[in-house]
Amino acid sequence: MNLILLQNEDFIDGQRAVLTGRRLRHVLDIHQAIAGQTLRVGLLNGQMGEGLIVEACAEKLIFQVSLTQASPPPLPVTLLLALPRPKMLKRILQAVSSLGVKHIYLLNSYRVEKSFWGSPLLQPEALQEQLILGLEQARDTLLPSVHLRPRFKPFVEDEVPALICGTQALVAHPTADAPCPATSHIPTTLAIGPEGGFIPYEIEKLQQCGFTPVSLGERILRVETAVAVLLSRFR
Amino acid sequence: MNLILLQNEDFIDGQRAVLTGRRLRHVLDIHQAIAGQTLRVGLLNGQMGEGLIVEACAEKLIFQVSLTQASPPPLPVTLLLALPRPKMLKRILQAVSSLGVKHIYLLNSYRVEKSFWGSPLLQPEALQEQLILGLEQARDTLLPSVHLRPRFKPFVEDEVPALICGTQALVAHPTADAPCPATSHIPTTLAIGPEGGFIPYEIEKLQQCGFTPVSLGERILRVETAVAVLLSRFR
Repeated sequence: MNLILLQNEDFIDGQRAVLTGRRLRHVLDIHQAIAGQTLRVGLLNGQMGEGLIVEACAEKLIFQVSLTQASPPPLPVTLLLALPRPKMLKRILQAVSSLGVKHIYLLNSYRVEKSFWGSPLLQPEALQEQLILGLEQARDTLLPSVHLRPRFKPFVEDEVPALICGTQALVAHPTADAPCPATSHIPTTLAIGPEGGFIPYEIEKLQQCGFTPVSLGERILRVETAVAVLLSRFR
Repeated sequence: MNLILLQNEDFIDGQRAVLTGRRLRHVLDIHQAIAGQTLRVGLLNGQMGEGLIVEACAEKLIFQVSLTQASPPPLPVTLLLALPRPKMLKRILQAVSSLGVKHIYLLNSYRVEKSFWGSPLLQPEALQEQLILGLEQARDTLLPSVHLRPRFKPFVEDEVPALICGTQALVAHPTADAPCPATSHIPTTLAIGPEGGFIPYEIEKLQQCGFTPVSLGERILRVETAVAVLLSRFR
């Protein structure tokens, strides 16, 4: 936790916020926080700054908060990701959030197991928990939005054309001829398939929509690794 | 498993190899292999090519093997990585192996918990298992070497100077002034610290040795994410 992320309901007045629960335990155990110490804090969807600890005990901790810095610029990427298996989804959401993506669509694909859509991890609170872990890691405050799209065809036909408007639309595809740009500053919509990749029908549908298939080279990476490698090229 | 990795002891004559155990189960369950089918195979530390299945049952599978392709070029990076916690080490070794690194040094650092050095994962067979999973994923055959260096100072003073000779030596450090190169084709020695980073003394020792601290920007990434992001810049 490189940033203590506060929410509006943590504030007891305009300047003082109270920590309890997971964040309190972390701050006490890992930062070994005591009164008088200053930690880096931020307000969810707001500014970042410093929190002076004015009181600390096992039950609660009170910060005197001063927020003066803007959060880091978002990554100009909208991510379309075939829903990964729940265990991997957790880690990927944290990583994607830490890398600065603000718009995430989890979509269906032929190789996505149907049972994944029933995971309790897809509940809004569970998604938010993983995203917040990513923000705390990266020192960011702006919560990404996650949209669930359990039907591939209607999503790609009805929604994606407007979504990719004004962006370069790329789909990661190990056998593509074109290489993925090494660096890019252009707003981008990036589609990443499941382990095993999108099937040819899905690649075709995305191409009809305006996506260009791009490859990372002859090595085939796990989705988790590919997500980090791909996203780091855009800034 | 995008490549079935064979070892010399799997061969029953110059051209035929037998699969048993984990690889057999994977090939039967995931690839639903039957006689007559051709799968991509490779020889550990050798060439890649095709394996025609001449016999397949629940106990064993026999390939007629033809190896004609070179494995992909290695990444020109020697990785010095502060020993991560065992669970993360598994995933990182797989990722690093899939990204094509061939020389890995796991080193100590102030923020590495002593108990990590006692993990059964550091046994040669256990390390090899993770590295092979990475090769099978990426379609590579050349097994990386892993060197354990549980003492920071003697390693950095006595061994690292020769190790970095003729390479650009970079240490990832979130507060560094210089940015990490976006892409590089120069042989590189890359040092990555533990969660929380190298301590100032360690950064100093590495700098005295010839390392330049470089940063990935204002976002602080988990080691696992940073490893993929950093390695993907070198090729």
